Amino acid sequence: MNVPLSIKWEGKRLIILDQQKLPHEIIYITLENMKEVHDAIITLKVRGAPAIGITAAYGLAIEAQSYQTNSMIDFLEYLKRDAAYLGESRPTAVNLVWALDRLLKAASPIDSVSDAKQILIEEAIIIHKEDEESCKSIGEFALSLLEDKTKVMTICNAGSIATAKYGTALAPFHLGKERGKEFEVFACETRPVFQGARLTAWELQQSGVDVTLITDSMAAHTIGAKGIEAIIVGADRIAKNGDTANKIGTLNLAILASVFGIPFYVAAPSSTFDLSINNGEEIPIEERKVEEIININGKAITPSNTKVFNPAFDVTPAKYITAIITEIGIIYPNYLENISTQIVDSIEKEKDYENK
Amino acid sequence: MNVPLSIKWEGKRLIILDQQKLPHEIIYITLENMKEVHDAIITLKVRGAPAIGITAAYGLAIEAQSYQTNSMIDFLEYLKRDAAYLGESRPTAVNLVWALDRLLKAASPIDSVSDAKQILIEEAIIIHKEDEESCKSIGEFALSLLEDKTKVMTICNAGSIATAKYGTALAPFHLGKERGKEFEVFACETRPVFQGARLTAWELQQSGVDVTLITDSMAAHTIGAKGIEAIIVGADRIAKNGDTANKIGTLNLAILASVFGIPFYVAAPSSTFDLSINNGEEIPIEERKVEEIININGKAITPSNTKVFNPAFDVTPAKYITAIITEIGIIYPNYLENISTQIVDSIEKEKDYENK
Repeated sequence: MNVPLSIKWEGKRLIILDQQKLPHEIIYITLENMKEVHDAIITLKVRGAPAIGITAAYGLAIEAQSYQTNSMIDFLEYLKRDAAYLGESRPTAVNLVWALDRLLKAASPIDSVSDAKQILIEEAIIIHKEDEESCKSIGEFALSLLEDKTKVMTICNAGSIATAKYGTALAPFHLGKERGKEFEVFACETRPVFQGARLTAWELQQSGVDVTLITDSMAAHTIGAKGIEAIIVGADRIAKNGDTANKIGTLNLAILASVFGIPFYVAAPSSTFDLSINNGEEIPIEERKVEEIININGKAITPSNTKVFNPAFDVTPAKYITAIITEIGIIYPNYLENISTQIVDSIEKEKDYENK
Repeated sequence: MNVPLSIKWEGKRLIILDQQKLPHEIIYITLENMKEVHDAIITLKVRGAPAIGITAAYGLAIEAQSYQTNSMIDFLEYLKRDAAYLGESRPTAVNLVWALDRLLKAASPIDSVSDAKQILIEEAIIIHKEDEESCKSIGEFALSLLEDKTKVMTICNAGSIATAKYGTALAPFHLGKERGKEFEVFACETRPVFQGARLTAWELQQSGVDVTLITDSMAAHTIGAKGIEAIIVGADRIAKNGDTANKIGTLNLAILASVFGIPFYVAAPSSTFDLSINNGEEIPIEERKVEEIININGKAITPSNTKVFNPAFDVTPAKYITAIITEIGIIYPNYLENISTQIVDSIEKEKDYENK
């Protein structure tokens, strides 16, 4: 039993898990060039913002190996062109553009094309490693918070296969397993797209973690009946005051945690904070297509003319969040104060380091 | 646009809506004899405790028409045998045995077989009519509570097609439509069996009621985003203290209503009260098969060896219930006191009436 990986760099080959085939088939495919990476992102073979960023970085680095020029000016021009092409494959994934920018920055000061080619590969590997370390660190902090708890509920797939390894909300379960700590995880199926049923149940089984699937509607009853001791979720975006946007259904769980008197944890890398946003009201909620709710496994579950409301995520007010677990530490309320201090401090330190 | 009916008695023919075909096909079928009624119940062509009771009553009355005897002793013996056969078609539906018992009681004091045959048909028609009147009465009381509200959320299908007409939780919407009151109903899809998506969305569309489908996970966000003003649900069983067992997911909604500060109403006939049960802890929760969660439209959504918890209903503590709406009136807290007074009083009156 091993923590499943969605991205592997073997020699000079980029191998990814085809997540569209999960959970029925576990198929790893080799992506040979940028075009194949682009297609893999578009067709959702790779998903999860960190995993997309890492894959795109490798894609760009691989493509650059084939540039037929000795001029760094030409080389950087090709690189920008291809970064732009890869960057538009999933416009909402912040990490995608961030990772590609890092490669551009890494190559820019280099004098020779052959060195630049090498640097790009190395930078992609660093991005990959950093994400694994970040997730592991989140897992460590989460494990410390869950030390005396075993029954934990989660939603969606903030998992290993959405990142380099371990994931965010699922990191304590994988890491716990490696260290002999046995959790009993209750995974909400996560309608409408079933990430909990399709991905989280599968992913935790791969690690040998004890996981039980429930429908989202069963959360309240299950917390009482099974003695759930904590809830942990990922995040899409966190505002300055701690309000957190995450997969639709998260707010339900946060409210239940509050009413049942159990802790509600958000686990996310510090890059998830958007300090330009004051509070949750400023976060726009994407509404997705009707078919996502109406059609399951190729068949309609309701009359085709049924009116549907399909928000993709919801915003959990900071007051329901016991703590936010990041790779740089655990942030507690008062969030407005502590996010500014802890996150801004960390960003400043990083800048200092880069400037040295 | 008309309130859809699941049972029609036309001349001497019993016609039912094949609910297994919903929502894709609207097919009414004639049930010719007891065997066909039995099969229709077993194969879920007819569902909802009141609708099952009514259908079984007609089934027994129809079958009795064919008894070849002039002896009332033989006649009653055949009747008991067939009532027992029909009674085991859905063991959990309380109304089923109750309706069959009423027919037995109605025939018992009759002297001639031909009169008894007539009485049985008449009694089945009375049971049918009484249920419609009961639902209409629930609808009236519910309308009075919802007078200044239009945006209402519901779960499952406590609907017209589960009863003689109008339903319980859906009664105010159908009745409101008939009287020019326009509701905006938000129907939770109701995993795992999708009664909200398959039945409630369809049923309210038939009446011309404005209905929007959401997944169960969207309830919290929708209450805030759409300004939901009240939640109304049906009930499977109500304890002496008001604790209410209903479709899994109901407890989620009750807690959300409490946190968002909107009323949470339970609508159910007085027969739903089980005064032998002191509180919700005494209500056993049926767990259903794994496949119900795992397989949708003939395909698995999760690895087939996934561990699943599948409780069929949950218990909402009385403290979350703003009022219980019955055909004999609205019951408010203190439930322990008021259920005893209002329900017991009504049962006593009924007994007095029967004894006259």
